Amino acid sequence: MKIIIKNIQAILPDEAGSNKIEKATVVVNQGIIEAVITDEKCVIADVKDAATNYVNSEKLCIEKNAYLTEAERTADKIIDGTGKLLMPGFINCHTHSYMAFMRNVADDLAFGDWLFGTISPIEDAMTDEDAYWGANLAILEMMKSGTTCFNDMQMNIHQTTRAVKESGMRAVISRGLVGSGNDEAGAMRLRQAYEERDAAKDCDRLSFFLGPHAPYTCDEAFLNIVAEESAKNDMGIHIHLSESRTEIENCMKQYGCTPIELARRSGIFDRPTIAAHCVHVTDEDIAILKDKNVSVVTNPASNMKLGNGFAPVPKMLNAGVNVCLGTDGAASNNTLNMFHELSLLTLIHKGVGETAQCISAKEGFKIATMNGAKALRMEDSIGSVEAGKKADLVILNTNTPSLMPNNNLIAGLAYSANGSEVETVIIDGKITMENRTVLTMDEEKIYFEINRIISRMGLDKKVY
Amino acid sequence: MKIIIKNIQAILPDEAGSNKIEKATVVVNQGIIEAVITDEKCVIADVKDAATNYVNSEKLCIEKNAYLTEAERTADKIIDGTGKLLMPGFINCHTHSYMAFMRNVADDLAFGDWLFGTISPIEDAMTDEDAYWGANLAILEMMKSGTTCFNDMQMNIHQTTRAVKESGMRAVISRGLVGSGNDEAGAMRLRQAYEERDAAKDCDRLSFFLGPHAPYTCDEAFLNIVAEESAKNDMGIHIHLSESRTEIENCMKQYGCTPIELARRSGIFDRPTIAAHCVHVTDEDIAILKDKNVSVVTNPASNMKLGNGFAPVPKMLNAGVNVCLGTDGAASNNTLNMFHELSLLTLIHKGVGETAQCISAKEGFKIATMNGAKALRMEDSIGSVEAGKKADLVILNTNTPSLMPNNNLIAGLAYSANGSEVETVIIDGKITMENRTVLTMDEEKIYFEINRIISRMGLDKKVY
Repeated sequence: MKIIIKNIQAILPDEAGSNKIEKATVVVNQGIIEAVITDEKCVIADVKDAATNYVNSEKLCIEKNAYLTEAERTADKIIDGTGKLLMPGFINCHTHSYMAFMRNVADDLAFGDWLFGTISPIEDAMTDEDAYWGANLAILEMMKSGTTCFNDMQMNIHQTTRAVKESGMRAVISRGLVGSGNDEAGAMRLRQAYEERDAAKDCDRLSFFLGPHAPYTCDEAFLNIVAEESAKNDMGIHIHLSESRTEIENCMKQYGCTPIELARRSGIFDRPTIAAHCVHVTDEDIAILKDKNVSVVTNPASNMKLGNGFAPVPKMLNAGVNVCLGTDGAASNNTLNMFHELSLLTLIHKGVGETAQCISAKEGFKIATMNGAKALRMEDSIGSVEAGKKADLVILNTNTPSLMPNNNLIAGLAYSANGSEVETVIIDGKITMENRTVLTMDEEKIYFEINRIISRMGLDKKVY
Repeated sequence: MKIIIKNIQAILPDEAGSNKIEKATVVVNQGIIEAVITDEKCVIADVKDAATNYVNSEKLCIEKNAYLTEAERTADKIIDGTGKLLMPGFINCHTHSYMAFMRNVADDLAFGDWLFGTISPIEDAMTDEDAYWGANLAILEMMKSGTTCFNDMQMNIHQTTRAVKESGMRAVISRGLVGSGNDEAGAMRLRQAYEERDAAKDCDRLSFFLGPHAPYTCDEAFLNIVAEESAKNDMGIHIHLSESRTEIENCMKQYGCTPIELARRSGIFDRPTIAAHCVHVTDEDIAILKDKNVSVVTNPASNMKLGNGFAPVPKMLNAGVNVCLGTDGAASNNTLNMFHELSLLTLIHKGVGETAQCISAKEGFKIATMNGAKALRMEDSIGSVEAGKKADLVILNTNTPSLMPNNNLIAGLAYSANGSEVETVIIDGKITMENRTVLTMDEEKIYFEINRIISRMGLDKKVY
């Protein structure tokens, strides 16, 4: 499929490794961004050869009109960019998509009451089908708010992957692992992780990490095994680290070190790792994260909502850590809307540090896109609007109160947009949402199934 | 006009002074909520007599079917509530609506650079027409995100009132006052405040407070004059207090006391006062606010964005202070969407206090509605869905990812909704928005004028 997006305000990478806004025409062909053409520059990729094989010759720039005429002649769809903004899709780097059916079922509770009193019993009663519909609801919400890739940790293999395949979304999946040394529980989950990965070989929108849940559910010997398995299989690692004060205290008691030091010494950090939360970290922890090239996913809403506090994100960024952004699951956020998360990211640290000059809108936008691509080992293929990259694109309506005036749209995305400005979503070169209608999913059917789960579990009778 | 909203999930006041969700049929007649009918209760107001004259007899409950049949026969419009939620409109208790045209023009700047480097020069170049179009954009954004009343402080008399009259919105207006003793600057602004009030006598959606700007722009003698004028004219007072650490330091130097103590001793607090910000307050300050029945408007986004920090809202609530919610102006927020502000209110204090059990969704919702009504001296007429109150109502679509499942919708409003769920808005008994189309304003014309202002001021050429 060939799509041309003509004369649109586009968020393009700048020379400083950040983003700028420029009027552009963008051509999508066979899943790839084939061309990005601005007044100043014309970059065309050879989609037949390889995504990274750019052609940026003077000659082509001179011939861009001929190229565009031919592209228009052969296009399946031409989108007029007037009054619109084009951006790379957000990358939600930490969520549990199945949890979407648990939205608003366990709010304003202390952590223990939340997890053991409410969430765990629901998880125990959850079937594979429930997890599948939960993942569908999550993907629907993410797509409608401009996310084109997410990093998921889940408990029911084949269910998130099934929803991803059908919906056209892109995702990185980890089967959550818990284990002690080489016990059967851990070994069984590792086998499931590989089984799930192998069963999804036909879908190149899916990739797989290993997901040791956390140091309080995986002992050091098991973390060691996971690190070895990760190296053997060339898979990244997705883990929860240093989320609550209790976690740190218990880790200090059991191992005499912080969760981050434990992850380092168990070999986890010798592998490409994406660590969720990192709320309570010492200066030594931050030095380890930087030294071992660990990517940190910050989850501002979830960390506040569960009473864990604020991660020292500005400090980690200053230390050179790759920080990316995630929503966590809907049971502890309760939204998977990355606009909401970006707004929190760019506001709360200004409050904590009592400085207005901290995580600017541009920095926040980079964290929500490029940094996420890097964390998921896809920096060469997603995260920005560049010729040769996969076409994961979002088109917004800028004729909205929230983005008016139109003079500083990256600030608008961080501080005033709410996600409903997203009109069209393209993932892997295919239009999955048009004019706010998701083409690849049955919205009414998802709502019907979600309410059925809630009713079956008696959660609709509960007094909140 | 008579409107019937049938069989809708409605947020109704409960016995504890908070809110609950119940299936209801609501009848609106001549601007008033004439009836709220649930399975358990039937309350009908006599709209011809007085808004507060309730009729709640056993007899009427028995005859409710006859009442409903007659109401349906005479209704101008019947709205089917299936898949919808009815709530009282949000009350935005502190904003500067004209500033909406300055959205995203001055971000990530230290306070001095923000105010003196960017905002003040724009205000100096601003005409009455600019202020009018700014107010229009602000009202459009508020209406589309479920706000039905706002409390405004402004500099160009007749402009916000003009936009309020035309749009069908409800508002409380203060002409910002600055002055030293009985100087002409202060006297002139007071005359303007009265002139504006008198010119708007024909619109009962408008009411007026006196707006001494802040202790750093009004000296003690002028505050004293304003307090006396407020008593003479039976007007409430709207003031900025204790927003930044610098303000407190300067006040201590100049007067030897905190801004809140200064407001008390100048007589301001002997009048019904709504105090914006109150970020940096002592325990003694909180005791004064409680003792003098001052309402505090908290503005979480603005306080973070300008680097002022977090107001001790849970502490003020525990002390019994009436806390309400405001967005502040779009130059320092940058959105007037109260869903965003409610989300911040219910999240950030959980982070600051490291406790999940702090400002629940229900408490937050009350703060954003009932407490606002009280602060604006309208607790008997707006802020909840009750027979006899003015019909300021918002209908939301609950078949959205953000509100799915539908089991705990007040939590949904605080934690997962983004405002785009709002479908229909009724203010003073008139439908101002239907199916997300604002019927009372020309959206395209507003955008055109806003972009024209930005262009005239050269703000579209600025590099952000």
